[in-house]
Amino acid sequence: MKYIGIDIGGMSAKAGLVNELGEIVAKRTAETDKGTDTVEFIANMVHLTVDLLTDCSLTLDDIGGIGLGFPGSIADEAGVVRYCCNLNLKNVEFVKLFRSGLDFQKTIKISNDANCAVLAEARYGGAKGSKDVLMFTIGTGIGTGIISGGHLITGNISAGSEGGHTTLFVGGEQCGCGRKGCFEAYASATALINQTKAAVLKNPTSLLAEAVEKGGLNGKVAFDCAEKGDRAAMEVVDRYIKYLGEGIVNFCNIFYPEIVLIGGGVSNQGDSLIKPLQSYVDTNVYGKEYNPKIKVSKATLGNDAGIIGASLLCTL
Amino acid sequence: MKYIGIDIGGMSAKAGLVNELGEIVAKRTAETDKGTDTVEFIANMVHLTVDLLTDCSLTLDDIGGIGLGFPGSIADEAGVVRYCCNLNLKNVEFVKLFRSGLDFQKTIKISNDANCAVLAEARYGGAKGSKDVLMFTIGTGIGTGIISGGHLITGNISAGSEGGHTTLFVGGEQCGCGRKGCFEAYASATALINQTKAAVLKNPTSLLAEAVEKGGLNGKVAFDCAEKGDRAAMEVVDRYIKYLGEGIVNFCNIFYPEIVLIGGGVSNQGDSLIKPLQSYVDTNVYGKEYNPKIKVSKATLGNDAGIIGASLLCTL
Repeated sequence: MKYIGIDIGGMSAKAGLVNELGEIVAKRTAETDKGTDTVEFIANMVHLTVDLLTDCSLTLDDIGGIGLGFPGSIADEAGVVRYCCNLNLKNVEFVKLFRSGLDFQKTIKISNDANCAVLAEARYGGAKGSKDVLMFTIGTGIGTGIISGGHLITGNISAGSEGGHTTLFVGGEQCGCGRKGCFEAYASATALINQTKAAVLKNPTSLLAEAVEKGGLNGKVAFDCAEKGDRAAMEVVDRYIKYLGEGIVNFCNIFYPEIVLIGGGVSNQGDSLIKPLQSYVDTNVYGKEYNPKIKVSKATLGNDAGIIGASLLCTL
Repeated sequence: MKYIGIDIGGMSAKAGLVNELGEIVAKRTAETDKGTDTVEFIANMVHLTVDLLTDCSLTLDDIGGIGLGFPGSIADEAGVVRYCCNLNLKNVEFVKLFRSGLDFQKTIKISNDANCAVLAEARYGGAKGSKDVLMFTIGTGIGTGIISGGHLITGNISAGSEGGHTTLFVGGEQCGCGRKGCFEAYASATALINQTKAAVLKNPTSLLAEAVEKGGLNGKVAFDCAEKGDRAAMEVVDRYIKYLGEGIVNFCNIFYPEIVLIGGGVSNQGDSLIKPLQSYVDTNVYGKEYNPKIKVSKATLGNDAGIIGASLLCTL
């Protein structure tokens, strides 16, 4: 049976028809916008679904269900979007309204996009076959996807798995959530860029400063300059790895996964990120003397994880 | 059906016969000691079990199974005690050896004692009926017992749930585990006593200093003196609540439980601990604006939780 997965973001919604092997056999995209009101947003998602099926010469009868991943706080079981800061959705009975708009009686499931990503990676991607998986999606913030003992961990009314908002330094850097010292205030791509900016100001004659002057600030420049031996950049990278490593070890001490996957833009650094993180986890995880090694790896499904994982919601 | 639960500590092992209502209908204790070798330790546990049954005029045929909780690192499914720092046990195939010594063919299960405690509290105690429960046992260290979506969270090969070893301050206070800045280095009873000691040295004319001079250092004196309005003691208590609250909020942001239970010696402070912790969680948990309140409460089963929870291992 085929399922539709829709990965909703602040700029676009990507819908895919996913087969039994976890392959996306057809894809279609629609724009999303914070200005769109709830009724119109749901109508757009209905159209996106119908258009995707039409592309494939299929009807709703040909699919087993539809799953949707949102960038926000979702009450999975109730089918309610509590809120998405980049979309105009607040306490929306999404499943009920979408079902009615589409006139579809089979399974419709929604969840947070980080949950979708870890489901996809654990079923078909970098953590295939593992029952204990942690996935950190590192971008503007840090999203955590957690599978423990084969179960997706979402907390009561799916309000948990907000792992970016655990503290690394009580009373530390201000976080967007209002609390201070959160993991994502130290180890998100945003934080890395802020740390790079501070290093440039402190080291105006460094290669790092020169590279930023030429190419602008981003989450890659410090890694690039560190590889060339620039001391200011190496300091940024080493400190960033320590912050990210500490946060990951915290989760490992709670969940002791078989594998930790890193996704999001920062994961494109590849080995220059993954290797020191692996070493940090090996050295610091609790019980390292008598427990199996935890593998640290790059997520493999990339942007497709969102669509594939959303479709998998229907099979939970 | 009745089950036997055995709560093993560094000084004693307490065995109980537990009925279908979670009541301990008979109890027996045996000494434990770090000096006892593995073979003798297992023989002692066999005797304890047989003696408890004899007390009740029962035989092994009359019980459904035996569960044992250990103060250490346990591979639950393999039935192996990886290590217990207060007992002379290291990589012991406990279930196999205990089964053979007892000549018992039904269920024998082992786990960490903090897991047993949360199982008991969630079935019969302070979290009765909840599927999402966090329990913090605060003593020499901090033990975490986690039930999420109805599942006991133990991690791969049960090596997780070491929540006392998540950091509050990267690079902070040295922890017994070798890492720096762990939750338990700031919020265990041991840490509270150290913080009290430091406050006494800094404030030699305070009521706190006087009380410590008379009654000695313990985890209660700062709370007692704070209630009497002593500023030095109030500072100790406020800071301790902040550390403990931050650690608890970190776990709430991951697991979003219905209820947080506090056990161990420090929980005997009652409302002077629980009320400010409740307030700290209410104020700081992620998504507090649109999610239900998380209740903070004292664990209710006390020392019996270990026996009852161990017996419940047989029913998982």
